[in-house]
Amino acid sequence: MVTDTGMPAEGATAREGGPPRVVILGGGYGGLYTALGLQKAARKGRIHLTLISRDNFFLSQPMLAEVVSGSIEPPHIVSPIRRLCPQSDFHQAEVEDIDLDRRQVVIRYPDQPNFRYIPFDHLVIAVGASTDLSRIPGMAAHSFSFKTLGDAIALRGHLIGVLERADVEEDPQRKERLLTFVVAGGGYTGVEVAAEINAFVREATGSYRHVEAAEVSVLLLQGASRILPELDEGPAAFSHRVLERRGIEIRLKTRVAGATAEGVVLDDGSSIPARTLVAAIGAAPNRVLEKLPCPRDQKGRLIVDSSLAVAGYPGLWSVGDCAAIPDTVKDGTCPPTAQYAIREARHLAKNILAAVKGSPMKPFAYKSLGVFVPLGRFSGAAQIMGVNVSGLLAWWLYRTYYLFQLPRMKRKIQVFIDWNLELLFRRDIVHLDITRSQQTTRSHYEPGQIVFNQGDLARGFFIILDGQVEVVRQREGVEELVATLGPGEYFGEISLLLGVRHTATIRALTTVDLLIMNGNDFTALANSSADFRDLLGGVMRKRLTDWGVESPEEIHRQAEEEATERNEG
Amino acid sequence: MVTDTGMPAEGATAREGGPPRVVILGGGYGGLYTALGLQKAARKGRIHLTLISRDNFFLSQPMLAEVVSGSIEPPHIVSPIRRLCPQSDFHQAEVEDIDLDRRQVVIRYPDQPNFRYIPFDHLVIAVGASTDLSRIPGMAAHSFSFKTLGDAIALRGHLIGVLERADVEEDPQRKERLLTFVVAGGGYTGVEVAAEINAFVREATGSYRHVEAAEVSVLLLQGASRILPELDEGPAAFSHRVLERRGIEIRLKTRVAGATAEGVVLDDGSSIPARTLVAAIGAAPNRVLEKLPCPRDQKGRLIVDSSLAVAGYPGLWSVGDCAAIPDTVKDGTCPPTAQYAIREARHLAKNILAAVKGSPMKPFAYKSLGVFVPLGRFSGAAQIMGVNVSGLLAWWLYRTYYLFQLPRMKRKIQVFIDWNLELLFRRDIVHLDITRSQQTTRSHYEPGQIVFNQGDLARGFFIILDGQVEVVRQREGVEELVATLGPGEYFGEISLLLGVRHTATIRALTTVDLLIMNGNDFTALANSSADFRDLLGGVMRKRLTDWGVESPEEIHRQAEEEATERNEG
Repeated sequence: MVTDTGMPAEGATAREGGPPRVVILGGGYGGLYTALGLQKAARKGRIHLTLISRDNFFLSQPMLAEVVSGSIEPPHIVSPIRRLCPQSDFHQAEVEDIDLDRRQVVIRYPDQPNFRYIPFDHLVIAVGASTDLSRIPGMAAHSFSFKTLGDAIALRGHLIGVLERADVEEDPQRKERLLTFVVAGGGYTGVEVAAEINAFVREATGSYRHVEAAEVSVLLLQGASRILPELDEGPAAFSHRVLERRGIEIRLKTRVAGATAEGVVLDDGSSIPARTLVAAIGAAPNRVLEKLPCPRDQKGRLIVDSSLAVAGYPGLWSVGDCAAIPDTVKDGTCPPTAQYAIREARHLAKNILAAVKGSPMKPFAYKSLGVFVPLGRFSGAAQIMGVNVSGLLAWWLYRTYYLFQLPRMKRKIQVFIDWNLELLFRRDIVHLDITRSQQTTRSHYEPGQIVFNQGDLARGFFIILDGQVEVVRQREGVEELVATLGPGEYFGEISLLLGVRHTATIRALTTVDLLIMNGNDFTALANSSADFRDLLGGVMRKRLTDWGVESPEEIHRQAEEEATERNEG
Repeated sequence: MVTDTGMPAEGATAREGGPPRVVILGGGYGGLYTALGLQKAARKGRIHLTLISRDNFFLSQPMLAEVVSGSIEPPHIVSPIRRLCPQSDFHQAEVEDIDLDRRQVVIRYPDQPNFRYIPFDHLVIAVGASTDLSRIPGMAAHSFSFKTLGDAIALRGHLIGVLERADVEEDPQRKERLLTFVVAGGGYTGVEVAAEINAFVREATGSYRHVEAAEVSVLLLQGASRILPELDEGPAAFSHRVLERRGIEIRLKTRVAGATAEGVVLDDGSSIPARTLVAAIGAAPNRVLEKLPCPRDQKGRLIVDSSLAVAGYPGLWSVGDCAAIPDTVKDGTCPPTAQYAIREARHLAKNILAAVKGSPMKPFAYKSLGVFVPLGRFSGAAQIMGVNVSGLLAWWLYRTYYLFQLPRMKRKIQVFIDWNLELLFRRDIVHLDITRSQQTTRSHYEPGQIVFNQGDLARGFFIILDGQVEVVRQREGVEELVATLGPGEYFGEISLLLGVRHTATIRALTTVDLLIMNGNDFTALANSSADFRDLLGGVMRKRLTDWGVESPEEIHRQAEEEATERNEG
């Protein structure tokens, strides 16, 4: 077994005659707890264990929403996998492919130009589910997904940034849009996120002199006829009442049909002006499963038998959200929750060891303790062993259960301290925008929306990927349509080349997708390439002539006049 | 006074006849403590106070290096300015210009297309220093600066990423490069950062099965003939010995002449292969000062008199790192430290209130308590009231002093807990790479360096901004120079258009600067624009013909053959 570069791979330490090689894909609840169950066997040399995950840490997913509100510090809900599983070879890498014929996994490290091949005798597929927002136009570019720790940190930073902008915004409509927060999806995740956003933003307004809590709107959109399909009707209805009492507007039978930088388009054609859209929808199978020849259910999950093995493919196993596991207690398949994944993984570790030894395997059977939904500060809903619990008790049970589930004593202490400090002090509103230098490269617009206005400061160079825009110029109060541009055409070059504000308004005629190059990159390119400069200069001169502008100098004069008017107006 | 959009600005609430408008630029030690000193007067309505800062939080700068090693959680060394200064109008914005004639400041909010104008009667300039790495080729693109909290978080993430890569790297040279960490600049910041990197990386290797602490190299480069010019020779020499004993290699009289993705070029022409370069050099005046007509010293700082006023410009004041303040105790000017900035700011607040009342102002006079340098776990060097202190006592004094300086009780508790947990548990190695989706858009190369190798996976589309590269192809073991490309020319299109690995090696002939477009953006553009597609397709076909390749299909066949060889070799 060799790597791409002709060098022996690390996995090769477990050669023919060595112990069986168990490779686990995924570092979530399913993958991690399988690895934990195999640590002892690995230490004794009975197996060679390898764990492959995109992140080098394990995330306590059920606490993710509390990162948004600042109840828990982000580092406290993650733990280094290398520390938790010291008996495994660990690879922080993306899984590119699973080659069942050669019995090897193809992985790729971040920013590396080559693949690496990891051979296996037993393969545990615990890659979880992924999110696919591509079916809703603009959704991928203009909504916050909510799966990773990075998502939670980004959303928190965005919420505070929006409050900062609202505090200095003078236009009432724009202020209202800034203070409208929409969550799409009324399942478990959507409810939790909406509750935390609502609690956090309303409390934080106390630190903003020009924003009142009453100006804040939080909307929860749910396609089905009630929220929380994971719960029975009783606790779901209780949750619905609690959320509404706290100021969340719930719209049932409502789906998102499109998203832009300025708002959400609904399936009935209406729209909600909002700067914040969280997507708690779009669960999709992991890409890597699609390449496998194994049977999958209608949700795209790998079908396994009650021993957690993929029938017909010896040595192939699967647990967690990517597996369709027969529920031997209830009908149907096991639900995709952390509670089940932990039990499945512990059971799988035992079955793999049995398979290695040649002893018989046992079927997986687990009866859930219950379901918890936190509803923001000091309230929750739960069904525990068939009994409905609500309010403070449910909230306390939820916290206690997941505190005990946290791996490592250090984390238990830190989260416990976070929760106690939260009772004593107000939550933080620090705007940790560490992605400041990141440039948006794509943007989506709905018909009628403005890309930029004449007189705006230069934003960049725009290339139309899809759709049509109109170019409108104002001269002495009269609006004039000067051009219509389509795919492959571009705009924004005049203000960048001449160093002036935008000389026309660009409005979307259809749905439009743009590629944006930031001003610095554009200027660097124009400086380096005479061809590029000539091409753009020619187009610019033609446009200016069409507009009746004699020369670039005239644009400069006009821009100066307009700026003076603004200053003195 | 109106804004750009013709709407009255918020500052206009303090109109003619209202209280004097005091505007503070900068939210560091100078700006924040001036604002704190003016809170009472603002509450009583004697002044109208406005604070403008790029971040909505105050950063306890002296603790920044401890974020890198994970001794302190990032959120714990920052505090929300709005909470600390509830009697101020706060704007999270960039200062674009200071208009002394109209007595207004021009600011810009993030991502906003318009300026905002804030009028003032008194203006406090406390914008600090900035960093300018542009004089060293490649430095801006390939080094980590160390000024903001974002810088510290990014560096920490990078260090852990490098350890992850080193753990699975099989090529000894590449592994050595990954495990070499260079800090440029042997002043206070450079020493602190080198000490924290050294302590953290050596400890963290314990969690990596294939990395030994002995494989780690940390180098500190200093242009002068000794480190720590801020200290006397005694404690500086002590620090030098401590750092060397802990495994840091110190090179005196050594400067960086260039930087690339693969290493550091020194001023004697030699180079150090290293994946990590931290720039603790390049202090430069803030851009906004350059536009002012006021006198500045040779370091570019605003010259103020002993009352902290800019002579000849009534109502203009300056404190902190951007001000040249006469030191009335020693000769020269006050040093740019947090300790001095706090005292200057408190003094300035009193002088502004005196100016408002028309009472006489007092000259600033402060005798420093001392200088502290932390040298990593449990050691430090200090000069306190003329006495040299070193080792554990200096380290303890440093921590205690800055713990007391932290604003807000919640922060004092949190940092105190962090420090105690650090004594009990190992430091974290969680790789919080929340900038995963960010694309590098620029890259710099030194002569002879490889941009990519034939057979590498497609990385993107490259446009040459400056310099020349050669294109080399291997056929049946023979290397052939097929082209030389210069500014404005591009490469990488073949593998993106045909979906194959790179079909040639690109090597820098001179120093080269590239603009990189990621593969997804390139594909989107090629799909949308027939012109772009035809242009690139033409160039691609010409290149393939020149190389003796008959058709795109042949490239596919070759790529498949090579891939099979790799798999089976």
